[in-house]
Amino acid sequence: MKASQFFVSTLKEAPADAEVVSHKLMMRAGMIKRLGAGIYNYMPMGLRVIRKVEAIIREEMVRAGAVELLMPVVQPAELWQETGRFDKMGPELMRVKDRHGRDFIIQPTSEEVMTDIARQELRSYKQLPKNFFHIQTKFRDERRPRFGIMRGREFTMKDAYSFDRDVATATVSYQNMYAAYQRIFERFGLQFRAVAADTGAIGGEASHEFQVIADTGEDAIVYCPSSEYAANIELAEALPLLAERAAASQALSKTATPGKSTCEDVAALLGLPLTQTVKSIVLAADELNEQGEVVKTTVWLLLLRGDHEMNEVKVGKLPGLKAGFRFATVSEIEAHFGSKPGYLGPIQLLKPVKVVADRTVALMSDFVCGANEADFHYTGANWGRDLPEPDLVADIRNVVAGDPSPDGQGVLAIQRGIEVGHVFLLGTKYSADMKATYLDENGKPQLMVMGCYGIGVTRILGAAIEQNHDDRGIIWPESIAPFRVVVCPIGMDRSEEVKAAAHKLHEDLLALGVDVLLDDRGERPGAMFADWELVGVPHRVVISDRGLKEGLVEYQGRRDAEARKLSLAEVLDLLTPKTA
Amino acid sequence: MKASQFFVSTLKEAPADAEVVSHKLMMRAGMIKRLGAGIYNYMPMGLRVIRKVEAIIREEMVRAGAVELLMPVVQPAELWQETGRFDKMGPELMRVKDRHGRDFIIQPTSEEVMTDIARQELRSYKQLPKNFFHIQTKFRDERRPRFGIMRGREFTMKDAYSFDRDVATATVSYQNMYAAYQRIFERFGLQFRAVAADTGAIGGEASHEFQVIADTGEDAIVYCPSSEYAANIELAEALPLLAERAAASQALSKTATPGKSTCEDVAALLGLPLTQTVKSIVLAADELNEQGEVVKTTVWLLLLRGDHEMNEVKVGKLPGLKAGFRFATVSEIEAHFGSKPGYLGPIQLLKPVKVVADRTVALMSDFVCGANEADFHYTGANWGRDLPEPDLVADIRNVVAGDPSPDGQGVLAIQRGIEVGHVFLLGTKYSADMKATYLDENGKPQLMVMGCYGIGVTRILGAAIEQNHDDRGIIWPESIAPFRVVVCPIGMDRSEEVKAAAHKLHEDLLALGVDVLLDDRGERPGAMFADWELVGVPHRVVISDRGLKEGLVEYQGRRDAEARKLSLAEVLDLLTPKTA
Repeated sequence: MKASQFFVSTLKEAPADAEVVSHKLMMRAGMIKRLGAGIYNYMPMGLRVIRKVEAIIREEMVRAGAVELLMPVVQPAELWQETGRFDKMGPELMRVKDRHGRDFIIQPTSEEVMTDIARQELRSYKQLPKNFFHIQTKFRDERRPRFGIMRGREFTMKDAYSFDRDVATATVSYQNMYAAYQRIFERFGLQFRAVAADTGAIGGEASHEFQVIADTGEDAIVYCPSSEYAANIELAEALPLLAERAAASQALSKTATPGKSTCEDVAALLGLPLTQTVKSIVLAADELNEQGEVVKTTVWLLLLRGDHEMNEVKVGKLPGLKAGFRFATVSEIEAHFGSKPGYLGPIQLLKPVKVVADRTVALMSDFVCGANEADFHYTGANWGRDLPEPDLVADIRNVVAGDPSPDGQGVLAIQRGIEVGHVFLLGTKYSADMKATYLDENGKPQLMVMGCYGIGVTRILGAAIEQNHDDRGIIWPESIAPFRVVVCPIGMDRSEEVKAAAHKLHEDLLALGVDVLLDDRGERPGAMFADWELVGVPHRVVISDRGLKEGLVEYQGRRDAEARKLSLAEVLDLLTPKTA
Repeated sequence: MKASQFFVSTLKEAPADAEVVSHKLMMRAGMIKRLGAGIYNYMPMGLRVIRKVEAIIREEMVRAGAVELLMPVVQPAELWQETGRFDKMGPELMRVKDRHGRDFIIQPTSEEVMTDIARQELRSYKQLPKNFFHIQTKFRDERRPRFGIMRGREFTMKDAYSFDRDVATATVSYQNMYAAYQRIFERFGLQFRAVAADTGAIGGEASHEFQVIADTGEDAIVYCPSSEYAANIELAEALPLLAERAAASQALSKTATPGKSTCEDVAALLGLPLTQTVKSIVLAADELNEQGEVVKTTVWLLLLRGDHEMNEVKVGKLPGLKAGFRFATVSEIEAHFGSKPGYLGPIQLLKPVKVVADRTVALMSDFVCGANEADFHYTGANWGRDLPEPDLVADIRNVVAGDPSPDGQGVLAIQRGIEVGHVFLLGTKYSADMKATYLDENGKPQLMVMGCYGIGVTRILGAAIEQNHDDRGIIWPESIAPFRVVVCPIGMDRSEEVKAAAHKLHEDLLALGVDVLLDDRGERPGAMFADWELVGVPHRVVISDRGLKEGLVEYQGRRDAEARKLSLAEVLDLLTPKTA
């Protein structure tokens, strides 16, 4: 490809609304162009990366036995009503009416349509297992689209759906997809980690996220460096940090802590370690009648060690809080605790609340907690003696680095990640709602057991850049770079030798199957080099009159500190694709 | 590919709602699956054809210097308001509101977004000409979707847009695309014709349609077998069929024609040729004020030879009718002609009307026409003598087979076609509305001159099948068949030799780059052969024990009447792709 026949458009400055580095660099490199909030044109340079990402996904999906089809963007609401998602999903589901007033949705995902196809097409156990995928435009009307194409509204997703006879074979299908995802992300050339994840709103029995490691990632990934354990922090189990509860050694004492409403401040004031303090979080769960009116509210007190954070996903799984919860209001807090927030604790409540102690808190003794009186805390508090045992002991906190690994193989570390893939063992959630059955060997209808498997195609670009960039621009992995090699001739307009050598190298590389761009735009060397460093092409070959006189060209890898002088033969040899 | 790893799903009967053969065969061959009215899932077998069609289009577009990008499916209404199309377009434009109540549309085409990109990115004459294309999902909310994916609501289209300095260079860009389209349709292996076409609602200065020839096509294509002339019947010019007006030889005479209200009936009654009669068509044009109220209505009388049909597109270009027209009501007709329809003519009107004679009618003499009295016609009518010369003489009819070619090179023939591509020289219609300018050599802003170029990707499938099928099923051209070759082993479960030979042939063909499917489903020969004839795979190789004993296999081309016995070496040689 010659630059004159392509479209290269770079910017010196990123637009003001670009918050993260990948968004800034994609805009500056002319890969995307904003059309509206969370809606982008994929410009020629960006589309080349998307196509390479799609090609790798497609190859590995087919290798894993999945079959490609294409389901529509605009889908009739009826199917989404069968599963209840038409009503249950919030405004992120884009709803639209046709000229006859019939309801449609713009697909955010395709479980319903796929299950509808399966229940018509897969009638016998002999046809199972089957795995279908498509790579298609999706739309989610995000409340706050941001980070460029990492959290856009319109995006491209690969979604696959497996159909199996039972959970045992569905688990094999799931593992098959897990393995395919490993190969896909390895081929992308990205550092990633597959982590156990919460199944969340989509439901199901097991799930793993594929996270691209990046300091700027929104997700916290928990892993054990000395074992295979890895999980999203939402799911990672926190073991108790104490082996058993020590006997009480202090008397309960109410201590003035004027203006000290946080555990950190109280610990500092009292000269005690933060790990001796207990913090109180007050939640409320409303019970609704069929009209949606609140008929009963239960107040919950959650107790965490002062240095720990509440894990909302874990809390949402507690019996009694599964249907939803909120933070209690100040008036609810004052009615139950007789104190304003900041000095709350489990001792001497005005009205009973449901007390949940984190596993570690339940084993603490001589701890510090609020005294339910402004500017006072208790020290030397002990379970059983000063307050009743908690109503419930549970894992309700985020793990922190250094916590014991749940597999008993060492201690946990934490890094940041960007979720780019997700595999779910769905079970019969959708097949039950939509009556997707097959006939077994005895001619009896059985529900199909499903899995679903997504990769955010366009998000891969953002994640790859967050992981691989420097102050000059993007550093694409070889397999997904828009061009693998750029040939930069210097003074092509003045020197026939340079022009001929550049064109010859371009053609020789093309003949070797190398994805190469010849920069024949006639830009000055400085601007030309800056453009390709910004765009992030992995290999650059500079051809100049001076070099040609010695029979040499200048080669520089995008991560190299300096250029090397090589003969044309050496360059060809270096850049020839090596088959594995 | 092995059938067991793919998805083959054929039907004995087409669903009742499938009207045309392509729709029936695509449903029966498992290529598409209906999701809603005009909305289809592209099943694995159909998607393979789509991908091949897309690949050919992409290659030829890039060869022609066009650059691929990807514009969103969901587009903000603002741009469509700039050109006025948001309000002007009818309900076929699918409108949708986001969670904030902002207006969006689901793209039926992308002139607005493309022009928006161009006005930002193409700032200097040095950047022109430029041609961008994308292959993307489109949506048109058709009032009556039908014919399967030939007139669906959601479909895939390739649309390209060229930007030029002036009409002269834009014409070069247009011709370049015209040539690319010729190559594309040749590579599809379809019989097609490029025809001059009306620019219609999209506007512009020139346009050609690419029509796939098929008896079932909705369009009538006019061409001259002895020259290059070809046009859509909407546009094809009808020359006068008479060299000059002969002198009057009959007297005007009112003749009773009781109950004979058509030219055919009157000619038969009077024993005259139909070509001696003139038919009257009464139209009305309403003039509206700003409130949309009718302030004035003009009645028009159009005169055509009895055997000719009115051409609405041509009539719509007459001065005075450009803003729109309708057929006159019976009361309007009676008020102006003093007669009910069926006996109308240009002689002795009650109130004046605007009289338009078709070119041929204007040269007729001694003609027959209605007498503006029920059950009576005039014979021997002559211009000038019996009625004033017409207000306007114009080409207002459809050409018919045998008419002289407008290029003077012979006579016209007519065939049916399916429009699958359309190229437009748009001029500055969109660039003016959207202020898309570039700076010329003198630093002065100038409007870009645009062209746009569409191919209905999914419609190609329907058109190819309408053109190429028999009573057994589809006959795909080689270049777009879902598989080029199918290997059918007979009794693979009983014979290790058959199994081994089938797998080896499959692998040998794959190694030669042949797109081959091995049918390892274990179906009986009859069902297997019927499936692949229905699907339309161009080449079939049958491997059986009996054949192998003689070292032979059975080869049959999809259009061949009989199979041939060939050695494996001969089959490999026959099926090896020949490079041009």
